[in-house]
Amino acid sequence: MRDLSCGRIIFGMGTCCYYVAVSIDGFIAKADDSLDWVRHIPQHNSFSVLGGEAVDLFEYHRFFSSVDVLVMGRRTFEVLMSFMEFPYPDKRVFVCTRGEVDTRDLALVTVTNEDPVSLVDNLKHEFKNRIWIVGGGGLAATLMKGGVIDEIILTLVPTVLGSGIRLFGEGNFEQDWERKELVALNNGLTQIRFQKKRKGLRESLFIPASNL
Amino acid sequence: MRDLSCGRIIFGMGTCCYYVAVSIDGFIAKADDSLDWVRHIPQHNSFSVLGGEAVDLFEYHRFFSSVDVLVMGRRTFEVLMSFMEFPYPDKRVFVCTRGEVDTRDLALVTVTNEDPVSLVDNLKHEFKNRIWIVGGGGLAATLMKGGVIDEIILTLVPTVLGSGIRLFGEGNFEQDWERKELVALNNGLTQIRFQKKRKGLRESLFIPASNL
Repeated sequence: MRDLSCGRIIFGMGTCCYYVAVSIDGFIAKADDSLDWVRHIPQHNSFSVLGGEAVDLFEYHRFFSSVDVLVMGRRTFEVLMSFMEFPYPDKRVFVCTRGEVDTRDLALVTVTNEDPVSLVDNLKHEFKNRIWIVGGGGLAATLMKGGVIDEIILTLVPTVLGSGIRLFGEGNFEQDWERKELVALNNGLTQIRFQKKRKGLRESLFIPASNL
Repeated sequence: MRDLSCGRIIFGMGTCCYYVAVSIDGFIAKADDSLDWVRHIPQHNSFSVLGGEAVDLFEYHRFFSSVDVLVMGRRTFEVLMSFMEFPYPDKRVFVCTRGEVDTRDLALVTVTNEDPVSLVDNLKHEFKNRIWIVGGGGLAATLMKGGVIDEIILTLVPTVLGSGIRLFGEGNFEQDWERKELVALNNGLTQIRFQKKRKGLRESLFIPASNL
């Protein structure tokens, strides 16, 4: 498959995916990094609404099984380390920081001060499935500006926060994307998958009203 | 119908609705107030994805016919005045500002320095249908903090802006909402209607996967 936006062959390369829960007003955490507004949400069943039949493409475990490697910033890592158990002990994890981080006994966690754009570019060559950008907004903005994010999957939580950590840190990087999938979860959440817009390709998953 | 959140009778009162287009990252305009990223979007057909059948509840003209009165801030008004024609010449419009605004020959536009929360509260008693909060984010934040917004209808545009005017101006007003409708437009846009959460009422429009 040829990526028309840059002309290179992407078959067999990893896909960089920013998969994150976001408030109605575009925040991924409160100002104190807290995720309490997300964590109280009950379990759910999901179904695709654009695909026209019940699928659970975005159901978390299915998503997670498509992930080869996780990339995150220091603050995101420290929030995860504050949980009872680190949630991803069995996957390769890269923590991007110019500072120091205590990774305790987590053998698969690598702390790196490599430029995040180069890191992700290298990971795309090393892995074939998803490279999950876990957060935070600053790292995501750096990767957006660098043009290496291929996919954004938002889980829209029906909460307004008013302030907090933004989906992307401040910057000017206007980019057009394409909605590729839309999923209603029966706990009130909505998942939307966007792909970087490639000129000449039409949205492929859209089912017109007459076919529903 | 009794509004369980505050105990008052709302039957026959107006509904305050913040209906606005928003980028993937939660901006309603660029930093210079520009809307060019929205205005190039082609016409569309819409269909409801939660209702299980084709409806066009959020199709703009249908929405607009449910609007009795528009409320906006000064900057939003001035952006609209910069268009070839003011788009809403036949509806009552209130412009909230402590300053001065040139309304030219628009007979139905009222400039007011009244507290926006009181204004909207009074309009709810005066009108029976929708009071449309057109923007901007500062006015919307004031009304959110004042607790007078009943409904948020987002039109999610598949563009990342990186910076601009936020959906709500800065503030701390965490509030839980309920997704009541989800609409895919075939031009790639997604519309989501939220209602203020009322304890004890379940999401009513949800159709489980087995019924699709």
